[in-house]
Amino acid sequence: MGGSLDLADVLSAMRADLNIVEARLREEANVDYPFIGEILRGIIGGGGKRLRPLLLLLSAKPFNYVIDRLVPAAVGVELLHTASLIHDDTVDHAVLRRGRPTLNSLFSNETVILIGDYVFARSAMMAAATMNPRVVTVFASSLADICDGQLREIFTAHQLTESIDDYRRRIFGKTAALFAGSAEMGAILGGADDAQIKALNAFGGHVGMAFQIVDDVLDLRQSTDEIGKPAGLDLRQGTVTLPTMLFFRDHADNGHSDLVRRVIGGDEATDDDYHEATIAIRQSGAIDHSLEIAGTYVAAAKEALRALPPGEPRDMLECMADLSLQRTS
Amino acid sequence: MGGSLDLADVLSAMRADLNIVEARLREEANVDYPFIGEILRGIIGGGGKRLRPLLLLLSAKPFNYVIDRLVPAAVGVELLHTASLIHDDTVDHAVLRRGRPTLNSLFSNETVILIGDYVFARSAMMAAATMNPRVVTVFASSLADICDGQLREIFTAHQLTESIDDYRRRIFGKTAALFAGSAEMGAILGGADDAQIKALNAFGGHVGMAFQIVDDVLDLRQSTDEIGKPAGLDLRQGTVTLPTMLFFRDHADNGHSDLVRRVIGGDEATDDDYHEATIAIRQSGAIDHSLEIAGTYVAAAKEALRALPPGEPRDMLECMADLSLQRTS
Repeated sequence: MGGSLDLADVLSAMRADLNIVEARLREEANVDYPFIGEILRGIIGGGGKRLRPLLLLLSAKPFNYVIDRLVPAAVGVELLHTASLIHDDTVDHAVLRRGRPTLNSLFSNETVILIGDYVFARSAMMAAATMNPRVVTVFASSLADICDGQLREIFTAHQLTESIDDYRRRIFGKTAALFAGSAEMGAILGGADDAQIKALNAFGGHVGMAFQIVDDVLDLRQSTDEIGKPAGLDLRQGTVTLPTMLFFRDHADNGHSDLVRRVIGGDEATDDDYHEATIAIRQSGAIDHSLEIAGTYVAAAKEALRALPPGEPRDMLECMADLSLQRTS
Repeated sequence: MGGSLDLADVLSAMRADLNIVEARLREEANVDYPFIGEILRGIIGGGGKRLRPLLLLLSAKPFNYVIDRLVPAAVGVELLHTASLIHDDTVDHAVLRRGRPTLNSLFSNETVILIGDYVFARSAMMAAATMNPRVVTVFASSLADICDGQLREIFTAHQLTESIDDYRRRIFGKTAALFAGSAEMGAILGGADDAQIKALNAFGGHVGMAFQIVDDVLDLRQSTDEIGKPAGLDLRQGTVTLPTMLFFRDHADNGHSDLVRRVIGGDEATDDDYHEATIAIRQSGAIDHSLEIAGTYVAAAKEALRALPPGEPRDMLECMADLSLQRTS
């Protein structure tokens, strides 16, 4: 299924339309505050993979695909994602994002909060520009879900008591909700019927879950250079992700549980402790186990696509599901 | 004009409908994160004057007034205002708001940012629930204006070079835009014609300008107990407001210019310096001068109302314009 297409084919088929989205996005960075325009151009323009706009466009492809009707929503979901990254960087105290310095390493906290709010506002204006109340509702509810996921992340930090079901709920909010929403908005704007809209919402949600699990794995497995943000950040922040949960549940027989537990607690961990804990989880089998679970989400995503008519648009969506497993950054 | 009505009459006429808005607002505070529900109940439930919902409802009153159609928008503008206060408290490092401790004196910055985002998200869902794309557009653009005004406030802090026109633009964004938007949304949802919608937008904007100027005056004139937030905060933050601008332009002959200039610069000011600077501005005539300018906005607001049919709804709106001058907190 869909095996005849790879990402390069999808991107090449969608290139012209993605360029329109890109041009609109770059316009959004033109603000007349000192310094901020330049920084926004860096953040909005630089290095984002535009997965959410791509998903939104592809989700309209099997139906009545009118690019002009889709562009505001596609720009809106990318801006919403960007705003959320800006606030998340403030929260994370991260200094690198997409391989560049984050806003909060250059400006005061207050300025960064307001720039994030401003980008939220612009994203809401894009949603409004669709003139489609149902799209606006999906948009606003995705934002609520993102906040919910991020709040849950804060309230579960440094704890090993969260269940895997609660972890799923948390990353659904943090990441998968906007994937689900993007696919749903595309389907709505393409004029899909309710069953198809529901199927694409489910598809996007499953892809987003796989995407976040792989993200959590990459955080443990890759170097800072490879992922464009500090590696091992989750452990340092006490954010317990699937590999760590599985390490304790199924793979903690390698004698490093106490170390990892102490590192999650965060109180007296040294750089060496973090490094050693990362290696312990990496070598425990928890990484492969996590990727297996990500694989089940990709399978569920493909299953959801069966509600759509077969053809190239569906193949492209399938390719996007596979992509979430293959990413290395 | 409108002299026969006072605020008590307006509130009594609108009480039942404001209570519906109030009940919906309180539901919004029911979130299932530890501690946060209680705090949100305090912030959303406690002490807000609901001026923006009142303005929105009153702006539909001369037209086709259907309360059920208005409630989501009325709740939405109050939540938007609340979200903006939450982020502004983080920005201000204020510890009191509406006479209560602010969120940021109780939680980490990151939590407060996300709670603000969550309230933004809920406000956007309310706007979406109107199912009216034009209302959603006004809503999103009010949010963009608020961020714009707040960013300008940051970038002009500690400076005495801003023109009074730029000050007007800054407080329009910070405060008047949402008053303008609230009135406009009410008019749209009431089915007013375009000229009337425009008139009510102008009315709300003028009232908002008067409201913010009086707010800036109160910050200099009242005690912390009277206004429910720390008095003299503007000077301490280097926020230059109309009284201070007029002090330098027209009233700085009382020998305290150097002191006030140093206090705005903020570098080495002591508590006594702030106190003395406050007294100097207070006694300079700049306060009365500022209130005169606020009065011109109230007059312009009343002038805008002439586009509406005469009658009790218009009288109530007029009363609201007067209210912006009479407030003491």
